[in-house]
Amino acid sequence: MKQGQASLRFENPVYIAAAASVAGKKEGEGPLGHTFTEIDEDPMLGQDNWEAAESELQRRAAGLAMEDGGIGREKIRYLFAGDLLGQLIATSFGVMGYGIPMFGLYGACSTMGESMSLAAAMVDAGNADYAMAMASSHFASAEKQFRFPLAYGNQRPYSATWTVTGCGAVIVGTAGDYARITGVTTGRIVDYGIKDSMNMGAAMAPAAADTIQQNLADFQISPSYYDKIITGDLGTVGQKLVIELLAEKGVDIADLHMDCGIEIFDPKTQDTHAGGSGCGCSAVTLCGMILKKLRDGEWKRVLFVPTGALLSSTSFNEGQSVPGIAHGVMLETVCQ
Amino acid sequence: MKQGQASLRFENPVYIAAAASVAGKKEGEGPLGHTFTEIDEDPMLGQDNWEAAESELQRRAAGLAMEDGGIGREKIRYLFAGDLLGQLIATSFGVMGYGIPMFGLYGACSTMGESMSLAAAMVDAGNADYAMAMASSHFASAEKQFRFPLAYGNQRPYSATWTVTGCGAVIVGTAGDYARITGVTTGRIVDYGIKDSMNMGAAMAPAAADTIQQNLADFQISPSYYDKIITGDLGTVGQKLVIELLAEKGVDIADLHMDCGIEIFDPKTQDTHAGGSGCGCSAVTLCGMILKKLRDGEWKRVLFVPTGALLSSTSFNEGQSVPGIAHGVMLETVCQ
Repeated sequence: MKQGQASLRFENPVYIAAAASVAGKKEGEGPLGHTFTEIDEDPMLGQDNWEAAESELQRRAAGLAMEDGGIGREKIRYLFAGDLLGQLIATSFGVMGYGIPMFGLYGACSTMGESMSLAAAMVDAGNADYAMAMASSHFASAEKQFRFPLAYGNQRPYSATWTVTGCGAVIVGTAGDYARITGVTTGRIVDYGIKDSMNMGAAMAPAAADTIQQNLADFQISPSYYDKIITGDLGTVGQKLVIELLAEKGVDIADLHMDCGIEIFDPKTQDTHAGGSGCGCSAVTLCGMILKKLRDGEWKRVLFVPTGALLSSTSFNEGQSVPGIAHGVMLETVCQ
Repeated sequence: MKQGQASLRFENPVYIAAAASVAGKKEGEGPLGHTFTEIDEDPMLGQDNWEAAESELQRRAAGLAMEDGGIGREKIRYLFAGDLLGQLIATSFGVMGYGIPMFGLYGACSTMGESMSLAAAMVDAGNADYAMAMASSHFASAEKQFRFPLAYGNQRPYSATWTVTGCGAVIVGTAGDYARITGVTTGRIVDYGIKDSMNMGAAMAPAAADTIQQNLADFQISPSYYDKIITGDLGTVGQKLVIELLAEKGVDIADLHMDCGIEIFDPKTQDTHAGGSGCGCSAVTLCGMILKKLRDGEWKRVLFVPTGALLSSTSFNEGQSVPGIAHGVMLETVCQ
């Protein structure tokens, strides 16, 4: 049901019943490597091109999530999924073999939050027993789409992030032991006029701040309601900004904040500059580390806020700014 | 509530409370010209580039729909919107000024069906009093994105369609006099292995047939339940195919079928070959002709099935097929 201006509170049971993550070699070597369901050392995942490789990430993550929950595809009423590529080709070619009624989504790197919000709303409304939510990215397909072909060997500034090769999939249902989804806050587009495609953290931080503040206002809670407030891929530059922007409004999240982009790589040994990014970054961190800590009761309540930068090479080259959007999902442990 | 395998039946009141369409000069000169809310003779809509022109279509259509219903933006809880361009830039830059919590969608030319399905589900569940659903396309931005720059002057085969310059927006609410939304059928991706980007009708027809058949099966009705079964942009080539494919399954829609892509242009005078296409094609035809006929009671029941071809220039150039998807929306007159 409606809660505040931009949120829903789920009074019916809405749980994460299954989850899986598939990640690349570099992600596997990072601090969260041990939390992923599957790591493929081959960046092509046995396919002929980068886009097909990303489709393979989606195909496998969806399959592993169904295996994890013992939930066959015929039981999954809806698939909410997306990726970063133009016209969502990674998603379309990845999932079409499953034949599940599908809603294609684009929220840039906020897509995991967008897909979980809609899947949860459908389950809450009794419109589905199970709905899958999924998002992916691939380092090489993203560099090709947004910046330069890898062979060009361009230098990356320290504000740049490294697109995660990975896909995370969850199955939302009326029962499950990973976590309960208690509510969602839907983001709006926020534009601070950032025009640097190598500094996505700065472009997304204002949207993250907006959604976090809206969530706290809608539910009339303070940040300490949560054990963690977890953004998607702000990286080190964006983390500083989101904490500052909220502090200016009297909201202190400094001690509670975590960013998937900062957690996923080791900056000392992996040369990833400001951190990880991409739809896959928050998706695999959720399905790996975050859901495990919730399932084990180490965290009681988490606000998961994947963050997206709304740009294309076309809009960027035409001099447009890079607006941001962020979608919040409230997760609670079921461990007593 | 769930109905059959892939449908929802709305038992709570879900209506189209407001609608607006903005179309280009060529669309304005076509047979449906008199049904559009606004026609702009300037293909750039006063903007600097084609993508910004398409954003302007979205901005105006959303504004005109709010005006039409006398519904301010603060009353609209969700915006479900999309377009054909990579990373949905027409949508993002078009709507961000409104600050409405937003779900970005990509369903190729099926997006109007996808956005209406989700908006209706949200209103039915009591999660929103009003939700806007919107989709756009622009001839020039689409040609640039998918085929050739206009300046190249390529020849178009007779199976090719002409991307509509236009945007349609509806506001779904708990009351309204345009039409009632009684149910939706969500499409899955259907791939017949078509590899011709100049023959989108053939690529989409199998998906349209699949969704129509699913709708009839889920609700246990025959085609004659409807006054019209209206696909999005199959054009003349795809229309023949969808009728044949369904006939093979013993479903006869020949006398009931209408295609927005066939209606929107006059083939004798407008040189559009197989018809109109693009997200905007079904969106403006809905907001123009279809909703007017429903409001006036000329049609009692309509199945509106926007159809999408899931391709990008990348996947196409890499030799992938063009799969299709179609989303069905059941509309009923409120006129007694």
